[in-house]
Amino acid sequence: METISENRCFGGVQGVYKHDSNTCGCEMTFAVYLPPQAEESPVPVLWYLSGLTCTHENAMTKGGLQEHAARHGLAVVFPDTSPRGEGVADDDAYDLGQGAGFYVNATRSPWKPHFRMYDYVVNELRDIVTKGFPVLDRHGITGHSMGGHGALTIAMRNPDLFDSLSAFAPIANPTQSDWGRKQLSAYLGDDEAAWSDHDATLLLEDKGWKGDILVDQGGADQFLELLKPDALAGMMTRCRQPGTFRMQKGYDHSYFFVNSFAGDHIAWHAERLN
Amino acid sequence: METISENRCFGGVQGVYKHDSNTCGCEMTFAVYLPPQAEESPVPVLWYLSGLTCTHENAMTKGGLQEHAARHGLAVVFPDTSPRGEGVADDDAYDLGQGAGFYVNATRSPWKPHFRMYDYVVNELRDIVTKGFPVLDRHGITGHSMGGHGALTIAMRNPDLFDSLSAFAPIANPTQSDWGRKQLSAYLGDDEAAWSDHDATLLLEDKGWKGDILVDQGGADQFLELLKPDALAGMMTRCRQPGTFRMQKGYDHSYFFVNSFAGDHIAWHAERLN
Repeated sequence: METISENRCFGGVQGVYKHDSNTCGCEMTFAVYLPPQAEESPVPVLWYLSGLTCTHENAMTKGGLQEHAARHGLAVVFPDTSPRGEGVADDDAYDLGQGAGFYVNATRSPWKPHFRMYDYVVNELRDIVTKGFPVLDRHGITGHSMGGHGALTIAMRNPDLFDSLSAFAPIANPTQSDWGRKQLSAYLGDDEAAWSDHDATLLLEDKGWKGDILVDQGGADQFLELLKPDALAGMMTRCRQPGTFRMQKGYDHSYFFVNSFAGDHIAWHAERLN
Repeated sequence: METISENRCFGGVQGVYKHDSNTCGCEMTFAVYLPPQAEESPVPVLWYLSGLTCTHENAMTKGGLQEHAARHGLAVVFPDTSPRGEGVADDDAYDLGQGAGFYVNATRSPWKPHFRMYDYVVNELRDIVTKGFPVLDRHGITGHSMGGHGALTIAMRNPDLFDSLSAFAPIANPTQSDWGRKQLSAYLGDDEAAWSDHDATLLLEDKGWKGDILVDQGGADQFLELLKPDALAGMMTRCRQPGTFRMQKGYDHSYFFVNSFAGDHIAWHAERLN
């Protein structure tokens, strides 16, 4: 693991690191914010998964998470959203290939060799962060848009590994959306049975989540038809899933939305992880 | 004035606008954050001047000011740092020309026709903001690096127009620095007598500031030799200037530094403007 940069931030350290990933077969970059409390003793970890087109950097610089993480004593990890590099397959579309890993393990060509973001987050990077930083093996997970999809699906499939869960405007029902069908077909093939493990609404019905879930959705989001929050909210209600679904009047899909509710999500996770 | 974008943010609105500037002779873009309180009644305005290479956008997305402005009921204006466009002079260096207006009115070719950022901020944009948004004609001013230089010099030269003042890692003594001598020479000519109106340390000695000043400086700033905070702190002390100069251990020159102390600066201005 190599340090790219470390900047003091709210009394802690915002770092950016890179490493050769065995899982993705390429060099991967990620960011970790360590709050000041980590200088005294290990702290819990919140995973923040980003959306389409993002790298580790977008939420790190625009999400406004550090101030609240410093107050509550949480580390925050910002993984990249896909493998990258010259030898890695890509597509001209912004929503397939590099920048659009969808947190799955691809089984189809040309994506199969590198696009293994599910295993990367759940296993390899989790191991690196837990061993390489002063953190507890106690994890929460959240994310925005495609990253909200990642957070919901990864948590429900791994309740032993995560103890708190939230999402910002997640892609909520990708098997029924153009943000989903195209990518799941490309990465996993046309047999839709393989897709259900990557659909938050279907997983909620199948497995549910052991704790309570916080979901924030902007009421003026320009992508409501693609995100399908109604499917998720409906299923949460039908399954009597403990949790809070908040429709936030006037907010769109931007980082200004994430920023506005970052404090609430950090507090939500801190309460459940500390 | 044309609206480029408006996003809901912490219950208020983060807007970006453009207009044809008479002062700069080109189209200029600026951003205004209106806190939720502005829906009820006009609010005071804080001007945030940005540093070298920045546009209106950098601090708007990375400065972390809105959360605190929403809490305290301040509008925040983010001007660009120079005129821009095809007909506007430029230089290959990052620290001269477009992105590097230094908040002066250029008197020398090729800069004279457009580089009038002093007049633009103090008069034209101030007028546009005061008339076009639900704000009081009650203003504070701050900024980072070159923008801290702009805030200090503009405020001290216009005590009737501004009522609160702070700076993040300002260029503090540009007549004695390579961040200053090169630009003041290019924009104002080689007669150094014309430069003293644009040097915070010299203005402090000559005029001082009617109120108290808050300055934050990162102790691990990579540009200490260019910023010359020692000149400013020394002069503040020699002049018995009311104020607070804080050397912040371990912080560098990045937006992580600005972000970390944005809350303190917003509170400082709110206390003096409300």
